[in-house]
Amino acid sequence: MNTFGRLLRVTTFGESHGPGIGVVIDGLPGNIPIDLAQVEAALRRRRPGQSPYTSPRQELDTVEVLSGLYQGRTTGAPLTLWIANRDARPEEYASLAEVYRPSHADFTYQLKYGHVDPRGGGRSSARETAARVAAGAIAYQFLRLRYPKLSILAWTAGIGPFSTAYQPKSMEEVEASPVRCPDLAVSQAIEAYLEKLRAEGDTTGGVVACRVEGMPQGLGEPVYDKLSARLAYAMLSINAARGFEIGEGFSSAEMRGSQHNDPFILTEEGRIRPGTNHAGGVLGGISTGEALWFRVALKPIATLRQPQRTVRRTGEPTLLQAAGRHDPCPVPRAVPIVEAMTALVLADFVLLAAGTSSHPNGVPGLSG
Amino acid sequence: MNTFGRLLRVTTFGESHGPGIGVVIDGLPGNIPIDLAQVEAALRRRRPGQSPYTSPRQELDTVEVLSGLYQGRTTGAPLTLWIANRDARPEEYASLAEVYRPSHADFTYQLKYGHVDPRGGGRSSARETAARVAAGAIAYQFLRLRYPKLSILAWTAGIGPFSTAYQPKSMEEVEASPVRCPDLAVSQAIEAYLEKLRAEGDTTGGVVACRVEGMPQGLGEPVYDKLSARLAYAMLSINAARGFEIGEGFSSAEMRGSQHNDPFILTEEGRIRPGTNHAGGVLGGISTGEALWFRVALKPIATLRQPQRTVRRTGEPTLLQAAGRHDPCPVPRAVPIVEAMTALVLADFVLLAAGTSSHPNGVPGLSG
Amino acid sequence: MNTFGRLLRVTTFGESHGPGIGVVIDGLPGNIPIDLAQVEAALRRRRPGQSPYTSPRQELDTVEVLSGLYQGRTTGAPLTLWIANRDARPEEYASLAEVYRPSHADFTYQLKYGHVDPRGGGRSSARETAARVAAGAIAYQFLRLRYPKLSILAWTAGIGPFSTAYQPKSMEEVEASPVRCPDLAVSQAIEAYLEKLRAEGDTTGGVVACRVEGMPQGLGEPVYDKLSARLAYAMLSINAARGFEIGEGFSSAEMRGSQHNDPFILTEEGRIRPGTNHAGGVLGGISTGEALWFRVALKPIATLRQPQRTVRRTGEPTLLQAAGRHDPCPVPRAVPIVEAMTALVLADFVLLAAGTSSHPNGVPGLSG
Amino acid sequence: MNTFGRLLRVTTFGESHGPGIGVVIDGLPGNIPIDLAQVEAALRRRRPGQSPYTSPRQELDTVEVLSGLYQGRTTGAPLTLWIANRDARPEEYASLAEVYRPSHADFTYQLKYGHVDPRGGGRSSARETAARVAAGAIAYQFLRLRYPKLSILAWTAGIGPFSTAYQPKSMEEVEASPVRCPDLAVSQAIEAYLEKLRAEGDTTGGVVACRVEGMPQGLGEPVYDKLSARLAYAMLSINAARGFEIGEGFSSAEMRGSQHNDPFILTEEGRIRPGTNHAGGVLGGISTGEALWFRVALKPIATLRQPQRTVRRTGEPTLLQAAGRHDPCPVPRAVPIVEAMTALVLADFVLLAAGTSSHPNGVPGLSG
Repeated sequence: MNTFGRLLRVTTFGESHGPGIGVVIDGLPGNIPIDLAQVEAALRRRRPGQSPYTSPRQELDTVEVLSGLYQGRTTGAPLTLWIANRDARPEEYASLAEVYRPSHADFTYQLKYGHVDPRGGGRSSARETAARVAAGAIAYQFLRLRYPKLSILAWTAGIGPFSTAYQPKSMEEVEASPVRCPDLAVSQAIEAYLEKLRAEGDTTGGVVACRVEGMPQGLGEPVYDKLSARLAYAMLSINAARGFEIGEGFSSAEMRGSQHNDPFILTEEGRIRPGTNHAGGVLGGISTGEALWFRVALKPIATLRQPQRTVRRTGEPTLLQAAGRHDPCPVPRAVPIVEAMTALVLADFVLLAAGTSSHPNGVPGLSG
Repeated sequence: MNTFGRLLRVTTFGESHGPGIGVVIDGLPGNIPIDLAQVEAALRRRRPGQSPYTSPRQELDTVEVLSGLYQGRTTGAPLTLWIANRDARPEEYASLAEVYRPSHADFTYQLKYGHVDPRGGGRSSARETAARVAAGAIAYQFLRLRYPKLSILAWTAGIGPFSTAYQPKSMEEVEASPVRCPDLAVSQAIEAYLEKLRAEGDTTGGVVACRVEGMPQGLGEPVYDKLSARLAYAMLSINAARGFEIGEGFSSAEMRGSQHNDPFILTEEGRIRPGTNHAGGVLGGISTGEALWFRVALKPIATLRQPQRTVRRTGEPTLLQAAGRHDPCPVPRAVPIVEAMTALVLADFVLLAAGTSSHPNGVPGLSG
Repeated sequence: MNTFGRLLRVTTFGESHGPGIGVVIDGLPGNIPIDLAQVEAALRRRRPGQSPYTSPRQELDTVEVLSGLYQGRTTGAPLTLWIANRDARPEEYASLAEVYRPSHADFTYQLKYGHVDPRGGGRSSARETAARVAAGAIAYQFLRLRYPKLSILAWTAGIGPFSTAYQPKSMEEVEASPVRCPDLAVSQAIEAYLEKLRAEGDTTGGVVACRVEGMPQGLGEPVYDKLSARLAYAMLSINAARGFEIGEGFSSAEMRGSQHNDPFILTEEGRIRPGTNHAGGVLGGISTGEALWFRVALKPIATLRQPQRTVRRTGEPTLLQAAGRHDPCPVPRAVPIVEAMTALVLADFVLLAAGTSSHPNGVPGLSG
Repeated sequence: MNTFGRLLRVTTFGESHGPGIGVVIDGLPGNIPIDLAQVEAALRRRRPGQSPYTSPRQELDTVEVLSGLYQGRTTGAPLTLWIANRDARPEEYASLAEVYRPSHADFTYQLKYGHVDPRGGGRSSARETAARVAAGAIAYQFLRLRYPKLSILAWTAGIGPFSTAYQPKSMEEVEASPVRCPDLAVSQAIEAYLEKLRAEGDTTGGVVACRVEGMPQGLGEPVYDKLSARLAYAMLSINAARGFEIGEGFSSAEMRGSQHNDPFILTEEGRIRPGTNHAGGVLGGISTGEALWFRVALKPIATLRQPQRTVRRTGEPTLLQAAGRHDPCPVPRAVPIVEAMTALVLADFVLLAAGTSSHPNGVPGLSG
């Protein structure tokens, strides 16, 4: 179950403190031009140590192509990327092997596998997400080739008690903030809050928002594989994710139908479309062509520099206090991961649409 | 993509205004005793017309077994249930065929399939959920056979501006309220609100909460097929669902790690477990054995008796006003659907755990 | 595991001596015209009692559409067909419940499911294949709509010691023989042989050959999901199938490369194609556009009117002697089943090709 | 579609003339001890250059573990193996890029992907099978841990006009022959034949036989995923495979039911089992516990040192004559590949049986 997708199938492997992590991307058509510089740019955004508010672990994250590219184009064979670990220090984790860390996966991995690799949490480590980001950057290039107007942009919509409804226009606006919050006043409040938490050895959660413009119409399957359901699945598969909402989401629970409904209109160009977009770009599980917009809630990072009560594997009570520097908040680094998972979901649906739609070319009348 | 699940595979079929709806349940082990009365009881809870606040359509929903049962036990062959439609009036829908109904799936179905069955929304109709409820009732019997202490209970946690944090102890508490809200003061406020909306020809959304007690440990897969991710997928596949959160969910975004972490303790019986359960019963995608708890946000019902502006398929502006009686809120009837999808997700993971765990019996040390 | 296919997913259900059998066909695009008369014609060819050499059981096999068709066209929703059993006599099977029938599935079903439905073999009965034939007839209509020159034709290539290399040109030639052997001299020898076996209470096996003309190019996936591998899988899933070979098959094992290779030529129309077709229409798992040709070996029918030694479920030795009339050979009735499974494999690959090929329209330059 | 298996999922990647080939093995339970020396031993058997009758290409095939092992045991995370290419000479293939080689996959890859990697046939190269062999060696260790008496043994049953019915008792018998034919007289005839073919620049096909002793009972699914059907699928996915038969296979087509049926008996130990095994160890798609036996037909190697007529990609006729040394026959090297694919199919069914059987421990009463 380390594979995501139906026609575009992404299989990730590798541990945070083994030789590296990798991803096999299977199902891409042949002859797609791939720019590895874009993959490395995406990885740099995910990388720890990029700002005062992320962990200082050095991950240079250079990407090696193990298969599937020839002269800069996909061959139709599995495209495999490998990112060697350069800063793995498994010995640092030895002491953790004896203790169940609160809100970590050690406990459940032990239940399930009867054996735990203490070197940095194995597959539950955030390191696995580098493989997702690399695969997402490939999927995004495929999407942009087919739909040049499509863009996926995520940002920090809130951290701890601070949040914003501001919607950025570009990645530059997002990247201008060290915490990826494009509302600069809120960004500054968040920065101060993260400093405070760091001083106290505490952590926090937050919310990532994402918006997809230039959406093709007709992506999604009506019953179980709704576009919204696959997005929820993808987002909840991200470490620390605890919630997902699309369009008005939990707010829609308090709205009236007369407020929430999106009446159809005829545009000046003679196209029928919803006049508003409370739905978040999806009706009956299928994309309308309007922007997708959704939010992902992330819980606080579990590793604290404060002492915490817990028990050893033997059951003996103990105090656990993390050494070293750790991110105080998962949100800034989750921004490119949300974008990557979005690209993987959409590219998979683009391939599926070819096979499942009723249009002679295999693709519905797409607006992108 | 009308199939849900990996080892327990549920395929639903049928339209709201065709001869009926059905479900093929494939993957159940043989020799499981099945009580059809429990299936019919579950269907009665989903049925419209059961209270003043649900649509008066009469669906008697008697279940016919087409295959897979012999002398009251599963044979290992696909178990197929069929629920004939008794109150289908396709002609009522004829007038709708010409108009794009705001926030309905007609528009996207037309995009995708190039052909629309106007008879009651086809597969996007709430009628499809009867098949889910029937399948869920079967899955629940399987779960209870394996884990007699396991219970799944959902309820109305909020409708429109009214909500409650009260957690019911039993289905009786839930069913005592005509809107399935076990907090009686809130229930009364909701009832009055729904009356008012009905008078105004308007509708509302709401939130369903769900809690699973007696959870087995070790269910879930660590990376993409996290238990939490599969639940999100299942819940967002329900019509009108717009959000999902597990454990502290969106609230966790505002919490500190020192508040949110669940330290492990040693119980008096010598068992290690989390001392609190902010996580909602899942760590690293795998069940801890603590209660699962999660919430699902539903948008308002799109069919209004108020006039709404929209366009005909020709693009011509028009006013649409629904005749007949329709539910003012999807929440009360969604309660058994949330329970059913939960049962399907869990039963699928129980079968998977047998194959993927490391324990000699194929099943980890389960607490249920 | 009662589902076949990846994008065109066919799920069959029902037992030979229950109320009927059915099939859910999921993944067909919408707006495909369907002629049910063709489905019934296909079922008539599979039906027992159609000649002196098949079982006299009366199966009228009228098809009822439970879902997915509207005004004679697919809607994109699951298309479900139901064939009621009209001649089920479960009581006839009661005596069999106590004995393990040689070379029947009772023994292994008991091992796997711990419970056996004695009514005619449950899912292992040839009755299940009626659902395959119905689904195949739907898939064939889809294929013919996309590739009007495509034709699938199977026939009896051998029964017992009698065989032919003759290749028929049309279904009429095949149907002219009561044993579906288009070589009339061989057909007569087979007919006499089957009479003799019937008189002796014995049975025989045989070989079905199949040829697909007008093949699209580019169907198939190169590594595991080769077109040839999926055909092998489909054919070996047929009851009584014991072997599969494509192109020169087992004969190729004795050939030299210089005999077996198919050199490419330039046709007068300027098209490159293999000049011969020893490969059977597939290279590297992908269709060349030349005719597919392959053969399926079927073992003798296991139910004998001769007395056979075996044991009761208690282990006590006994003699078993079947009453009633049974087919002496599975081959004539397997002919339409082989055609149906071929249609299902090809239609599934046609849908997949749309998503996996590199061509802008989602479909390679197909020759059909 | 570079993934094989349902619960034990094997994804292979890499090209024959890229940096190497690899395999991700996902779904293995944790805590399984793995001996890499056995993997390397299996690879040595597949390696070219091991006898006068195989290609002299030097593939040292040392295996690097990229993920999933810790202290010699599986962790439950994907186990990834990497085999670097040490003798890749892509430049040798440059001249091939212009010509469609008879009976090679270049033609169909070009059709499907619109782009061909001329470096040694990309994914259609026999090099991909090294990844299968490595994965099979892992699966075999898992099988032997669960069923210590299980053994999988394949051998050369025929090459060109020479064949044998002799069944070896051990791998030593097979390995004693340079062409893996345990019948020494036949082996010598084959050796002489291969020398002759080599001198003539020609090639041949042949048949691999395989036998599995110590089979667990109850593996397989009754309808589409029959054990026999999955084996056929796996075997036909091997390059050059053109036929598969199980048990009496194509011979059964000529047999009478009274000859072919396997009557059940009661053993002296009081166990019920088939007294003979014409079925090849499978009834109704499910293993009986008797030995599996089956055969795979392989076509002649397509690369000839004789001149062959064919056309350039431009359509211009040309003569093609392969330089260098190539195997004259695929059979000896296919022997370990057939064993590997068998192990993958069986291990996948072992994991599935845990989830799909009706037995309380998740596993039927297995005889292994």
